[in-house]
Amino acid sequence: MHPALHSFLHGKITLSAEHEALVARTFQVKSARRNEILVPKGAVAKHLYLVAKGCLRVFLLDDHGRESTRFMVFEGRMGTAFPSFIRQQPSAAAVQSLEASELLTLSYAARQVLCREVPGWETLERHALEREYIAAIERIEGFLTLPATARYEALRQQSPALVQRLPAKIIADYLGISPETLSRLKARG
Amino acid sequence: MHPALHSFLHGKITLSAEHEALVARTFQVKSARRNEILVPKGAVAKHLYLVAKGCLRVFLLDDHGRESTRFMVFEGRMGTAFPSFIRQQPSAAAVQSLEASELLTLSYAARQVLCREVPGWETLERHALEREYIAAIERIEGFLTLPATARYEALRQQSPALVQRLPAKIIADYLGISPETLSRLKARG
Repeated sequence: MHPALHSFLHGKITLSAEHEALVARTFQVKSARRNEILVPKGAVAKHLYLVAKGCLRVFLLDDHGRESTRFMVFEGRMGTAFPSFIRQQPSAAAVQSLEASELLTLSYAARQVLCREVPGWETLERHALEREYIAAIERIEGFLTLPATARYEALRQQSPALVQRLPAKIIADYLGISPETLSRLKARG
Repeated sequence: MHPALHSFLHGKITLSAEHEALVARTFQVKSARRNEILVPKGAVAKHLYLVAKGCLRVFLLDDHGRESTRFMVFEGRMGTAFPSFIRQQPSAAAVQSLEASELLTLSYAARQVLCREVPGWETLERHALEREYIAAIERIEGFLTLPATARYEALRQQSPALVQRLPAKIIADYLGISPETLSRLKARG
């Protein structure tokens, strides 16, 4: 089993040898180049991605070519264009690998098999969904209530390395602030 | 079984007579007065609420007493201050009944029992979470990309009656627009 998958599952599920083998061969390793588009806007998101190395971005693109970053998926987390993946319908958002990334992919059909065949997998999925749903709620709260400084601080604590290595434009867009405000905050921190 | 619970479960789960009786007696009927606070800020959210009649609001309150509406829970949906409910920790947000409401409540402990004892309940919970997570994602998308008109249109289509019967202040706050903009949009529609 890939070490990133092992870490992801650790403490969340106890697998028999047989089910561990099934899980290990169900996830596929995939490398993605920096800036590679994994799911184009309008395509169906066919996979969930567990980020072993690197970082994904889920973003919206309007008719004028303006991008807005909806989510970032950091190392050790799973993500995709979730509404498209669940409904298996064309995606409003695109998924991009922001860096050279190593991913473990789980297809829609394979996920159904794991939920059906592996005892405890559905509980694990429910807990993962609860965490992601809470993260989305906290992002909404951030938009509604936190000043730019606090949004930046939260991200810096969550993922210090990423704040350093990702382009300022992407970070600013994710935080909903101008690149100028971001560089002031970075200089201060 | 309460008709609102029956409708909520219909098509989502097939229950044996024994499990149907367990589910029916697990949910408790609760009436809430207009503007009643069900979960104060700083308290632990102990229940999930299925709204049989009325409407709930999950809102944030800052140190200056300013409110921001994070979510509304419309008839036929389940909701609560979800991060607090899942973690069983004090809530950043408060939950209020905006109208005289009839609710079916499910306690944290009872939910664990249903997940453990009732075949198919965890799948139902996973699907409910997927829907709520998608709704949160679409709300983030709305903040990032949609103009006020489109946000208002989406809410009007989702819940036409509520747009008419809830206070303009609450609707405007939920949409992240000024009450003046809202009254222009209402006059136009």
